[in-house]
Amino acid sequence: MKPLGPIPAVFESIDGELAIGGRKAGEIVAEAGDTPLFVYSRDRLSRRVETLRAAMPPRLRLHYAIKANPFAPLLGFMAGLVDGFDVASGGELARLQEAGVAADRVSFAGPGKRDRELEQAIAAGCTINLESEGEARRALDIAARLGVAPKLAIRVNPSFELRGSGMKMGGGAKPFGIDEDRVAALGRELIAEGAQWCGLHIFTGSQALDAEAIIETQANVLQLAARLAADIGADLPKLNMGGGFGIPYFHGDTPLDIEAIGAALEQRLADLPPGLAQTELCIELGRYLVGEAGVYLARIVDRKVSHGQVFLVTDGGLHHQLAASGNFGTVVRRNYPLAIATRFDAAPEEEASVVGCLCTPLDRLADAAHLPRAEVGDLVAVFCAGAYGATASPAQFLGQGPAREVMV
Amino acid sequence: MKPLGPIPAVFESIDGELAIGGRKAGEIVAEAGDTPLFVYSRDRLSRRVETLRAAMPPRLRLHYAIKANPFAPLLGFMAGLVDGFDVASGGELARLQEAGVAADRVSFAGPGKRDRELEQAIAAGCTINLESEGEARRALDIAARLGVAPKLAIRVNPSFELRGSGMKMGGGAKPFGIDEDRVAALGRELIAEGAQWCGLHIFTGSQALDAEAIIETQANVLQLAARLAADIGADLPKLNMGGGFGIPYFHGDTPLDIEAIGAALEQRLADLPPGLAQTELCIELGRYLVGEAGVYLARIVDRKVSHGQVFLVTDGGLHHQLAASGNFGTVVRRNYPLAIATRFDAAPEEEASVVGCLCTPLDRLADAAHLPRAEVGDLVAVFCAGAYGATASPAQFLGQGPAREVMV
Repeated sequence: MKPLGPIPAVFESIDGELAIGGRKAGEIVAEAGDTPLFVYSRDRLSRRVETLRAAMPPRLRLHYAIKANPFAPLLGFMAGLVDGFDVASGGELARLQEAGVAADRVSFAGPGKRDRELEQAIAAGCTINLESEGEARRALDIAARLGVAPKLAIRVNPSFELRGSGMKMGGGAKPFGIDEDRVAALGRELIAEGAQWCGLHIFTGSQALDAEAIIETQANVLQLAARLAADIGADLPKLNMGGGFGIPYFHGDTPLDIEAIGAALEQRLADLPPGLAQTELCIELGRYLVGEAGVYLARIVDRKVSHGQVFLVTDGGLHHQLAASGNFGTVVRRNYPLAIATRFDAAPEEEASVVGCLCTPLDRLADAAHLPRAEVGDLVAVFCAGAYGATASPAQFLGQGPAREVMV
Repeated sequence: MKPLGPIPAVFESIDGELAIGGRKAGEIVAEAGDTPLFVYSRDRLSRRVETLRAAMPPRLRLHYAIKANPFAPLLGFMAGLVDGFDVASGGELARLQEAGVAADRVSFAGPGKRDRELEQAIAAGCTINLESEGEARRALDIAARLGVAPKLAIRVNPSFELRGSGMKMGGGAKPFGIDEDRVAALGRELIAEGAQWCGLHIFTGSQALDAEAIIETQANVLQLAARLAADIGADLPKLNMGGGFGIPYFHGDTPLDIEAIGAALEQRLADLPPGLAQTELCIELGRYLVGEAGVYLARIVDRKVSHGQVFLVTDGGLHHQLAASGNFGTVVRRNYPLAIATRFDAAPEEEASVVGCLCTPLDRLADAAHLPRAEVGDLVAVFCAGAYGATASPAQFLGQGPAREVMV
């Protein structure tokens, strides 16, 4: 038997069935038309942002990195909750614009920006986090051609990393940002060239669950930003402090202590070095804001036994839940939080593996889990499905196509 | 420095530039309109099938498993080369039908077939490889409702596996097929119920490069099939012997010795046990047929140095080449075969990492490779891109969208 990840607190049940946003999973599926289905809860999104704002210093602005989940209705909803948005491509910028978000609330980071994406972003008036001197040159040239002063910030490749983060974005040679020691020269050049100077973007890592590591990193980020502002010789208009706030996926993971992070940051902000006194400060979160608000529902289409082991075969799988299947940059596969949605209150009584419908042994949603006995027709829920699900999975694999998505 | 995988023999150059199907990479890109671009060579597809047919016994039929690459023009081209097709979903069946392939050339395997997919397949007259007794019951009920005799075969979960295969599809508890010891009872039931009995499907693994392992497995498959035919008490009309033929991706990999496999199979077929004498025998290949016929082309949009390391940032990435990035079910990342297409004949002169445009450290196409010095505007070629590329990658990730695809 292998443990399942922790189900985010608190999902309720109605008549023994998982409820999301006050409605039974089966009802939501019936209304959406079919499984597999991603369900995103407005209530959970709102509450997550409220709790986070309550814990953080009021001065800190909150950005949503839409790479975590660019579903259009979710973007529209988040627009009323957060202060800004971060995009990683011209495609993401277009999605935000279609959702009615003004480009002046948007910043654009990403190591491989094409000329046409730079042009799109500059023309729209979005802030560009420059990833190299070469990209800076291209942006300045495009802006000159367009006859506008581009809004430019520098993404810094810091010499430190976020300890314990799922993905490290600093601390050595990286394709992201500009090494610390070259930032000041580029900053001065951008100002001299007449760009609208928008400050720095310092992203150190993602998916950390250790508050102490985030506190330490935020202190390092502020210190580095102050030093670079002094070297550039201009106050910093904006500082994107990055993100890194993780959510629990696996057995033994515990939620991040955001109160501790907020309290430590409050202290830092009370005593900021010159150059940062008037700086607009933000953090950029994706997974933390939306991950736990989403549930992926799939239906059991077969229940079979092979060599004594029970397999529950669903109509979903890794084509929508690549990370949950353990195949996206994972070394050791562990189970995500998962439940039989239609028997949410039932006690576990058997060991079963939940697999997807793809004809590959990689397609496993839960391995040797302790579950209530489930039958064909039951719904399976994979939790923490709000981030890096639908768009971070190979939806076309084996001809399956994308899952449905709804907000409740 | 880390080695690159072996470039499939023989790609030529024209004026120092990689040529595919007799045309320069840059010309193909210009005609297609943009990078990133998958290019599939008709000539390489034809030659691969010819070589394979020459090595295999004439009696052996050749099936193409379209999960490897379901690009519509490629399916149309393969229809003139192979004897049959294997699909893994109703979506794949529809793709074949749109490409003009008659359903009686198609078989359908996959552990999570929905009722509507069974109905689609039965109505079209395609052969269904049943994965469980439950699925058999559903198929019989649907056929009765439609008033037709369904074409049914049984997928067997063999007690042996394909040694050294990239993915094992046998040898223990599996979600695929029906355990050996329950096959005969189900076979007799299907015949008694009036189904068109189509025999067995025995798939043991994929991506093997060791001819001896495949020879041994094919012998085991024939032996098992003969035993099951005897237990069922009817000659076997068809036997899908599975696939497993691999292609070299990584440094040190060598091409599969298909002559050895063909010679051994020829001997076996000369001395088949009763029950298999008249059986239609086929192998089912995906990757082996199309993998080496495809090249993925991306353009370098930035050349940058961080802490002394060179990064070539392309407009492609893991959203089209998940497996090449080392993130699809891989434990240790190794480099695929890759080259600077626009400097194909140039000697390596620097160590560089080739990354994609996605804002994640996972997005790496070559790590610390020895390459000619490349500049912004150069084209990068990733080889072995004909299988499990476009549709096995998260095309929507970070708003990038799918790559273009062309046949040459």
